[in-house]
Amino acid sequence: MVSEKYKSMLAGKSVIRELSEFAAERGKEIDYENVFDYSLGNPSVPVPKEFTQTMMNLLSSKSPAELHGYSPSLGIPSVRKKIAQSLNRRFDMNYTENHIFMTTGAAGAIAHAVRSVTEPGDEVLTFAPFFPEYHPYIDLTGAVLKVVPPNTEDFQINFTLFEEMLSEKVAAVLINSPNNPSGVVYSAVTIQKLADLLHKKEKEYGHEIFIISDEPYREILFEGADPIYVSNYYDNTLSCYSYSKSLSLPGERIGYIAVNPACVDSDLIVSMCGQISRGIGHNCPPSLIQLAVAEVVDLTADMSVYEANMNLLYDKLIELGFTCKKPDGTFYIFPKALEEDANLFCKKALKYDLILVPGDSFGCPGYFRMAYCIDTEKVKRSLPALEKFVMTEYGK
Amino acid sequence: MVSEKYKSMLAGKSVIRELSEFAAERGKEIDYENVFDYSLGNPSVPVPKEFTQTMMNLLSSKSPAELHGYSPSLGIPSVRKKIAQSLNRRFDMNYTENHIFMTTGAAGAIAHAVRSVTEPGDEVLTFAPFFPEYHPYIDLTGAVLKVVPPNTEDFQINFTLFEEMLSEKVAAVLINSPNNPSGVVYSAVTIQKLADLLHKKEKEYGHEIFIISDEPYREILFEGADPIYVSNYYDNTLSCYSYSKSLSLPGERIGYIAVNPACVDSDLIVSMCGQISRGIGHNCPPSLIQLAVAEVVDLTADMSVYEANMNLLYDKLIELGFTCKKPDGTFYIFPKALEEDANLFCKKALKYDLILVPGDSFGCPGYFRMAYCIDTEKVKRSLPALEKFVMTEYGK
Repeated sequence: MVSEKYKSMLAGKSVIRELSEFAAERGKEIDYENVFDYSLGNPSVPVPKEFTQTMMNLLSSKSPAELHGYSPSLGIPSVRKKIAQSLNRRFDMNYTENHIFMTTGAAGAIAHAVRSVTEPGDEVLTFAPFFPEYHPYIDLTGAVLKVVPPNTEDFQINFTLFEEMLSEKVAAVLINSPNNPSGVVYSAVTIQKLADLLHKKEKEYGHEIFIISDEPYREILFEGADPIYVSNYYDNTLSCYSYSKSLSLPGERIGYIAVNPACVDSDLIVSMCGQISRGIGHNCPPSLIQLAVAEVVDLTADMSVYEANMNLLYDKLIELGFTCKKPDGTFYIFPKALEEDANLFCKKALKYDLILVPGDSFGCPGYFRMAYCIDTEKVKRSLPALEKFVMTEYGK
Repeated sequence: MVSEKYKSMLAGKSVIRELSEFAAERGKEIDYENVFDYSLGNPSVPVPKEFTQTMMNLLSSKSPAELHGYSPSLGIPSVRKKIAQSLNRRFDMNYTENHIFMTTGAAGAIAHAVRSVTEPGDEVLTFAPFFPEYHPYIDLTGAVLKVVPPNTEDFQINFTLFEEMLSEKVAAVLINSPNNPSGVVYSAVTIQKLADLLHKKEKEYGHEIFIISDEPYREILFEGADPIYVSNYYDNTLSCYSYSKSLSLPGERIGYIAVNPACVDSDLIVSMCGQISRGIGHNCPPSLIQLAVAEVVDLTADMSVYEANMNLLYDKLIELGFTCKKPDGTFYIFPKALEEDANLFCKKALKYDLILVPGDSFGCPGYFRMAYCIDTEKVKRSLPALEKFVMTEYGK
């Protein structure tokens, strides 16, 4: 018989995916240009041309065996070295290639990081609002994900509730800053307070509590935002990264785990990830993509469009009377809905061809997410629809 | 604390990997050209030039969003369709795109296939000699791998011992033909007998017993070998494929599962694989590689060198008095060692710069594997070393 567990998962479809499919269907009726689809976080800006050029150069100059041969199970050493050096330059760290494990994007990074520092039944805490895929990511490792309720004042950490939930069973804390869906960056004060509390509890409980820092939006920062590197604040940190957003390469599945050299067993964790990968069918990201990314490791796509879009949306939302924390980065914004049930609110918005995602699956009911990684022209065209929606449905 | 399970796995290094590392070290002393390294199954023939040309065309003609955007979680529909059509043409099947799940090579395929048709604690049977990585592949899913002892007469299935082990707890049978390490192809008689026995036991036990058919060497067949497609013989078959060997692309991690349309729940299994992937950090092989492979789906690298190498080695081994089944395909040969302990035999061979892998980790003590996916010139140069080794150590 087929597996009951995975069969039963088929019933729970992703709300984001359903809305995105609705938008695609509606697009067939009225032309997708007229659907204001804020559902999916699929980057719209192109990969840097240097990446494409590097790929062409590799394909025309290197031998097939050099390009397409097996990668060692931890990743190609020269690639890992370049990534370590780039992180050291930018964040004043002292990584070597032995602290870098190449992964298939952030999803692959989290799959390995969680398995490397938890035993089945251990708890992993995360903070609402949070990326809903954390549930399958963590649940299927055998660890238990628990969600600390949001601090909707400023979307920093709700420390009161966090401390209550930070029991002896907690092996790791999973954070995501810049945050999907709020767009908020945790401040230096927040990260320091988090580090202090975890140090205290590590001592009290007599075991490590690791930070697994999910950082795919690390490079998408807006004016005035602080570029915080979590590992600078806390030794037992595993930084999970993906080039999906910074290089606009989501389909190429390339990222890494960087284990803080001062982390407990830092010399073992990367090798352990190689063992984990044998059981989950991972066996490294593609060799060619590893080699190409290593050549553009300090570049990003031109992401200024995201800040332009954010400002257009934020100003309009405030003008229309929404409560909304101004994002510090990412390509998401997370305003409060105009009625208590954000599901109803988002359902009504569909009549105006506005595709908004209710905050419930992010652990933050009453709010909604807009992913504005779309053309600025489309954002502009969506503003009258947003206004009409609010005026008509909520009499504002 | 870091995970005990994965930490303890660090102690158990792969014998193949250790020998390969030894060969590389020795190569620094005497030039790698003079090390007769038969340890690793890393294809030596180049990828077809059509693949490289397709990659160049894609990079220069398609938009970055088309090339590098997220792939749907089951794979790109047009790619899955082309693979289904190719299998239908070649093996008289009736797959649609809905029966194809894109994976990161055969390792990814097995990771998903086993999870989709087993519950934790279920048994999976395989047949010695077998690829040693099956142990971590299966063990870490929660299922239990049990190995049916070899039939060293002809390396077909040992049906007497198989039937004894085929208890009610067996949920799946994992087969690998053409076989690593024996190079043997299971005959039509063997596969039919296997299918008949499984049908009988399915009825007796009242549940399905799936065949998971690991087929990365499917296209590497030598003169006279029968091109058997397992799914033609047994409905409940999940075929696990990789382009690593047929296209010489091992580093690009691209393959698929093809679920027989007549398989129980065939309409669900591919979708279930999409759910499984959420928990193991898989999220599809790279978009660009998917698109490129779809354009060369009926091609293979020029693999005639493998048959030439096999014939050179086989003739020499027979001349020197070895007992050896002539391979039907792959790039492996699996002779009987000249003393009972193949570990000692292989250790002695090192003195002659011959890197041979003992059969113990393949579940077949007393035999040894040679992976001859190397230059034919090097094979020729190795023959006097092989002769000297045998003459000197075994007085033949």
